Amino acid sequence: MTDPLTNLINTYHELNAAVVDELDEQPSALEFMRHVAKNRPFIVRWAIREWPACRKWDAAYLRQVMGREEVKVAITPLGNADAVVESKADGTLVFVEPHEIFEPFGQFLDSVQRSLSGTTLTGGHVKYAQTQNDNLRHEYANLSHDVPTDIPFARIALGQKADAINLWIGDDRSTTALHKDNYENIYCQIRGEKDFVLLSPVEMPCVNEQMMARGRYVPVPSAATATSTSDDGYKHDDRGVGELEAQLDTGAERVPVATWDPDEPEKRTTTWSHLAKPLRVTLREGDMLYLPCFWYHKVSQRVGDEGFVCAVNYWYDCSFEGESFASHGFVRDVYLAEQRRPEYPELKVGGETGGG
Amino acid sequence: MTDPLTNLINTYHELNAAVVDELDEQPSALEFMRHVAKNRPFIVRWAIREWPACRKWDAAYLRQVMGREEVKVAITPLGNADAVVESKADGTLVFVEPHEIFEPFGQFLDSVQRSLSGTTLTGGHVKYAQTQNDNLRHEYANLSHDVPTDIPFARIALGQKADAINLWIGDDRSTTALHKDNYENIYCQIRGEKDFVLLSPVEMPCVNEQMMARGRYVPVPSAATATSTSDDGYKHDDRGVGELEAQLDTGAERVPVATWDPDEPEKRTTTWSHLAKPLRVTLREGDMLYLPCFWYHKVSQRVGDEGFVCAVNYWYDCSFEGESFASHGFVRDVYLAEQRRPEYPELKVGGETGGG
Ligand SMILES: O=C(O)CCC(=O)C(=O)O
Ligand SMILES: O=C(O)CCC(=O)C(=O)O
Repeated sequence: MTDPLTNLINTYHELNAAVVDELDEQPSALEFMRHVAKNRPFIVRWAIREWPACRKWDAAYLRQVMGREEVKVAITPLGNADAVVESKADGTLVFVEPHEIFEPFGQFLDSVQRSLSGTTLTGGHVKYAQTQNDNLRHEYANLSHDVPTDIPFARIALGQKADAINLWIGDDRSTTALHKDNYENIYCQIRGEKDFVLLSPVEMPCVNEQMMARGRYVPVPSAATATSTSDDGYKHDDRGVGELEAQLDTGAERVPVATWDPDEPEKRTTTWSHLAKPLRVTLREGDMLYLPCFWYHKVSQRVGDEGFVCAVNYWYDCSFEGESFASHGFVRDVYLAEQRRPEYPELKVGGETGGG
Repeated sequence: MTDPLTNLINTYHELNAAVVDELDEQPSALEFMRHVAKNRPFIVRWAIREWPACRKWDAAYLRQVMGREEVKVAITPLGNADAVVESKADGTLVFVEPHEIFEPFGQFLDSVQRSLSGTTLTGGHVKYAQTQNDNLRHEYANLSHDVPTDIPFARIALGQKADAINLWIGDDRSTTALHKDNYENIYCQIRGEKDFVLLSPVEMPCVNEQMMARGRYVPVPSAATATSTSDDGYKHDDRGVGELEAQLDTGAERVPVATWDPDEPEKRTTTWSHLAKPLRVTLREGDMLYLPCFWYHKVSQRVGDEGFVCAVNYWYDCSFEGESFASHGFVRDVYLAEQRRPEYPELKVGGETGGG
C-alpha cells in the first residue's frame, strides 16, 4: 500500500488542477465564498485598474506625499528578509530576520530606484519596505486614501473588515522565502510584477519544515557609525550600516521553517518533495490574487517603469472552525511521526530522505 | 506524544462546539455557503411551515392522491433497513438490505398506521418507504407540487439543482443505521419527529468501519406464497411475505460499513470511539436540517398525530475539490495503517481495541 501522505498529496492533485483559477472580474461575495470553501487561490487580471493608486503612484507622487515621513525599512545583504541562512561555520540553518532601520521615505525610494544601476549607497544591501503590521493605515496613512478601505466581496463573505492592510515597496532583489500565514490574503499589484509560487497546505510534507534557531542581521560592530545628516537634509542611517552579519538570538524559541525551495527542487528534499505541484502565477500591474489561509507562498519581483515594485495586500482573519485547520495539524503530526520511524517498512516510498 | 488520530479528533472538538447550530430563519445563499465551507450542520426550526405539504399531508389526503399508486416498500423484521446483522451461526457481520415489494400506497399506509396498535398484517414486519432514488419526482409525483422544486438558498449557493428529492414514510420502528452519503442534504420534516445522531467525517476512526459481506432479507421459501388479490381490489403482496431471513449475497463485493453505534457506545469500539462527540438533534414538524456531505448519521423516528412519519429531503452533489475529500481519505488511510500495526508502541493510546 502507498503510504498515507503520498496518497493524500496525489489524491489532492487528482482532484484539483495544478493551475490558479483566472476570474474575469472580481467575484461576488458568494463566488468568493466558494473559493474560500475549497481553499483555492484565484487571480483576477486588471481587477484594481480603477483604483486611484494604479493611476497615481509614480515615484514623483510618492515622494511628494511621503518623502519626509520616517518609514521602517528591512535591510538584508541579498534581499532575503525572513529567510533561512546556512551558517558558514557548521552548516546549521538559522531563520534570519532583517536588520531594520527608520529612514525618510524619499531616501528609501532613492535606494530602491538606484538598485538597478548598481550604484546603491548601501554597499549593495537590499532594502524592502515590508512591515506586515497594517502599515498602510499607519506609517503610510498619507497614501491610504488611494486604495479602498476594504475589499467589498471579502468583507461581505467573511463577515469582517480587513485585519491589516500592508504596503510593500522594493526592488528586483528582494524575495520572500516560502512560508505560510494565518490570513485570507487579497494581494493587489500596483507597480512592477511579482511571481508567486504556491503550495497547498496538504503539501506540507514536501516543504521540509524544520525547527530552527532564530537570528537577525546586524551591522558588523566595527563598521557601524552614528547617524549622519547629509546635504539634502535627510538622515542617512543607511550609510552607516556597513557590513551585515547574521547573529544568532540564543534566547529565542526555535521556530518551524520550510527549508525546501520549489525553485531548487533537488535540494533539501523530503521523501515527499517530488510530489509537490507548485502553482506559479505572475501578478502584473492592476492584478489581484486571492491567496487562501495556510497556503505556502514564495514571492519574487521585478520593478516596473518607475523603478520600484509596489503592492498592497489585505489580510482577513481566517477561520479555525470546521475540519480544515485540525486536518492540517493532522498532516503535520503524521509527517512528524513518520520522521521518527524511518525504519517502518510499510510507510517507505521511493525518493530521497529529508535533510533533518 | 499523543497519536495523530487522537489529536485530530480532540483538536476538531476543541475548535467546534458539540452542538448543531440553530438558525432563526432560512439562510441566504452566502450564509449557507459559510456552513458548507465549515462543513457544519445547522437546523432551522419552522423553516418549512409555509409549504403546502405541511398543511395538507394528512392520511386522508395522501390516500386520496396516492392511494392506488404502486410504490416500492422496504420490509424488514425489526425496522433495520440497510443495517448490520450478526449471523446467529458464527457471529459474522453482514450488511443486510431490506426485502422490497411493490404495493398500492393505500395498503402501505394502512400497515404503517396500524403499527402502533400492534395489529399489522405482516407478522410484525416493518415497512418503510425509503427508496432514495428521487422518488418524489417519480413514484410520488402526485405529491411533488406540495413541496418546492428546489431549496433556493442551496441551489444558488451550490450552483446546481437538487440531484434527488426523496420522500420518506414510515413508523416508529424504522431506524436508519449510522452511515454517510456523498450528498449535501437538506432534510425537511413534515409529519412526526426524527432523532438524528451526527458524527463529523474526522470521527471516522470512532465508527469502527469494517469490510462486510452483503446480504438481503428474503422471505423464507416455504412460507412465501403467490401474490393474491383481496376483496378491496389491492394486491396484497405483503400478506405473502411470511418470515424473513437474511441471505448472504456471495457474489457481491464487500463494502465498508460503520459498526459502532453511538447509542451503544461500549459495544464494537475502536481505540478512538470514546473520543466521539455525537451531535443529537430532533427534527419536529416544519423543521429543516442541513446535513453536510460525508457526515455520519443515524436516524430514528416517532409518528405524529396522523400515525406516520413523513419527511422530504433534497440531495445536492457534493464537491470533491479542495482539501476536504482528500483529507477524509487520508484519515481513513492512517486509521487503516494503524490497524495493521497494533504493536507499534508510539501510536498506542488508552482504550479498547477495535472489534475487527
Ligand atoms: O510580497 C511579498 O514579498 C510577500 C507577500 C507575502 O508574503 C504575503 O502577502 O503574505
Ligand atoms: O430518514 C431516514 O431514515 C434516513 C435519512 C438519511 O439517511 C438521509 O437523508 O441520507
